Amino acid sequence: MTQTRAVFYVSDGTGITTETLGHTLLTQFPNTKFVSERIPFVDSEQRAREVVEEIKKVGAEHETRPIVVNTCMDPAIGEILASSGALMLDIIEPFMKPLEDELQQPRERRVGAAHSIVDFDKYHQRINAMNFALTYDDGQQINYDDADVILVAVSRAGKTPTCVYLALHYGIRAANYPLTEEDLEHDRIPDRLRKYRDKLFALTIDPVRLSQIRQERRPDSRYADIKTCRSEVAAAEAMFRAERIPTLSTTHKSIEELASKVLSTLNINREMF
Amino acid sequence: MTQTRAVFYVSDGTGITTETLGHTLLTQFPNTKFVSERIPFVDSEQRAREVVEEIKKVGAEHETRPIVVNTCMDPAIGEILASSGALMLDIIEPFMKPLEDELQQPRERRVGAAHSIVDFDKYHQRINAMNFALTYDDGQQINYDDADVILVAVSRAGKTPTCVYLALHYGIRAANYPLTEEDLEHDRIPDRLRKYRDKLFALTIDPVRLSQIRQERRPDSRYADIKTCRSEVAAAEAMFRAERIPTLSTTHKSIEELASKVLSTLNINREMF
Repeated sequence: MTQTRAVFYVSDGTGITTETLGHTLLTQFPNTKFVSERIPFVDSEQRAREVVEEIKKVGAEHETRPIVVNTCMDPAIGEILASSGALMLDIIEPFMKPLEDELQQPRERRVGAAHSIVDFDKYHQRINAMNFALTYDDGQQINYDDADVILVAVSRAGKTPTCVYLALHYGIRAANYPLTEEDLEHDRIPDRLRKYRDKLFALTIDPVRLSQIRQERRPDSRYADIKTCRSEVAAAEAMFRAERIPTLSTTHKSIEELASKVLSTLNINREMF
Repeated sequence: MTQTRAVFYVSDGTGITTETLGHTLLTQFPNTKFVSERIPFVDSEQRAREVVEEIKKVGAEHETRPIVVNTCMDPAIGEILASSGALMLDIIEPFMKPLEDELQQPRERRVGAAHSIVDFDKYHQRINAMNFALTYDDGQQINYDDADVILVAVSRAGKTPTCVYLALHYGIRAANYPLTEEDLEHDRIPDRLRKYRDKLFALTIDPVRLSQIRQERRPDSRYADIKTCRSEVAAAEAMFRAERIPTLSTTHKSIEELASKVLSTLNINREMF
């Protein structure tokens, strides 16, 4: 019998940190079915008491003890939440004392500071990077001098989501170079990219998967045909090998994994937002 | 004197969870200068030993004890990392025992499961949502029936980044409606949006900030002129009030805060990716 457990991600900010970590913890228990709810902006005792009622109600419905993943900075709120009877996983509190001792200073309780605009310049950089990724999404009219990274791949191999992720989370100016049929006739990278060798990262993909993705876009086209996909991918991979461009397949990789690999391969150490 | 501390986010996966939580913990100590480095994909004892050398080297350069935020699932790797002498903040381990006891099952060590493609359908939904957001970014030719959320605002008020974030992290199909000059002559929402009232969320912005943003795009244009910005924002806000559309100002809010508020206001409970 599979248990169903209600999980509440309770935060005084956006709840993003809470859910990210909570989700990581729960992946270790794949045999339990979790039904989760995000409860952000819990920044008063009054609000905390309302949340307790919600937790009790949902717990009673599932007939199991709920789990609360809590990142509220105020311990008084944590105590109120605990009165719900849920299993409390307090994420922030256990790490504060070791940090206070090590840094020899008391913590400052900055509520919701993780995902608010703390540093305006950094935030602006991020939004600019995002606009950069979207504006030059088609690889046309772009000045690659301004790019931190240039992703090279055939059409629909996963360049755009990866570029947007890099921009949104790392403030990286990530540009796209979609390989054209003409490019693929040669096993050398296009001349236009030659002077940017150090910024290049190649993506590839399983041709069957590529064909599925292209089908959704242009059904029954030559573009989506498995033969076209096979020959484009083979030509692209031959080019990447000949030029020794770092290459990753997007077939079984998430955007996060791709972004993380691009940064570590190109040796870019940029703080996450 | 401001101390500088080296912080290492060490993970057997992408390092995204590690950095997200680590960053939250460190925001509580604004008087210390942290220099951070992300070390992803540490999935062998050999790799862990290399990382130890790196930690020791950087720690010696800063002449302070480094801090390691560790989310590697394998305790053997954690022990090796601890041999660096750094302050260890082990994020996963302390929560495993309470969860094992509560769920009455042992954890399964799934390395890097948080940000890999565990659920293909969900991942596909997310990529589709992202394509939706980008394809319909200009508000033209869109069938709003397919949208989960429609963000309404004047041009450059922050719709696109918010839509992309909602798509990328929640698999939400977020569409844009940029208010035209003609729309702004009335204090009613455009007819085209009327049947989607429940999906509407309005964004507004300080006119001075809007003018700055537009200046970067089209310098010295009527579009960027502060008078134009003031009158457009005033007309839009009057419309949102008259129609009682939930409204948020993007001036001092991060994309994460906007996304989180949109979801809680429209009562959308979608798991984060």
